[in-house]
Amino acid sequence: MSGAHQPVPGGLFTEVDHVAVAVADLDAAMAWYEETFGARVVHREVVESDGVEEALLAVADSYIQLITPTSDQSTVAKFLSTRGEGLHHVAFRVDDCAKALQAAHDAGVRTIDQVPRPGSRGTTVAFIHPKSAFGTLIELVEQ
Amino acid sequence: MSGAHQPVPGGLFTEVDHVAVAVADLDAAMAWYEETFGARVVHREVVESDGVEEALLAVADSYIQLITPTSDQSTVAKFLSTRGEGLHHVAFRVDDCAKALQAAHDAGVRTIDQVPRPGSRGTTVAFIHPKSAFGTLIELVEQ
Repeated sequence: MSGAHQPVPGGLFTEVDHVAVAVADLDAAMAWYEETFGARVVHREVVESDGVEEALLAVADSYIQLITPTSDQSTVAKFLSTRGEGLHHVAFRVDDCAKALQAAHDAGVRTIDQVPRPGSRGTTVAFIHPKSAFGTLIELVEQ
Repeated sequence: MSGAHQPVPGGLFTEVDHVAVAVADLDAAMAWYEETFGARVVHREVVESDGVEEALLAVADSYIQLITPTSDQSTVAKFLSTRGEGLHHVAFRVDDCAKALQAAHDAGVRTIDQVPRPGSRGTTVAFIHPKSAFGTLIELVEQ
């Protein structure tokens, strides 16, 4: 840990890494954000392990993450069929994903991932279960 | 594509202002974010016009906004009763709310607010309709 992050008000959260939006048509959603507000797509990736294709639009040091399922078995496909398009999860950037996950476990928080795993963009990630987080699916992201 | 070190602007969006989470018990949700991850509450306000009480937890230059209804007529009360606790909307900071709203109107986007209005913290805000935004309730926030 560098001293730079010690007294930050966000505690273990150093940044809103991304806000994820589940959409049916990735190209259409990308075009909407670009054409309406001038946001720029800076990354696009198929994440096979999660059954999604994602596009990231930069907003300052954070991202809008548009995600669409690549198969009917994807949890995002199930989300779209039951809830429709919309906000899917929020990701907070942390210096150390394992440490943040341990803090959650120490606090008795239920997590989807028991250990950190690879995410997109070469990140290391872990998900907190929404039933333990006031209905919010929270991702911890270490860059 | 731009060079690797060239800053990529978010267009009209200068920052993720906040991610809003609808909760039934504001104190419990605040305590959870504080005790689990060390996030700090930096603002708390009843917004009578929206029928909500909000608490802001700082994450870098953004906020987690926890909102709970102050009356049964609040749209957030309806949200909780139909969808349960969870992600409610995302707010993007803009330099000029009227200009960003005009950009939305120029693009044929349906908005909830036809003109900017006062928000919490002395901000000026306007909401984009989720039916025009791939299911996402988007707020534009001018500080």
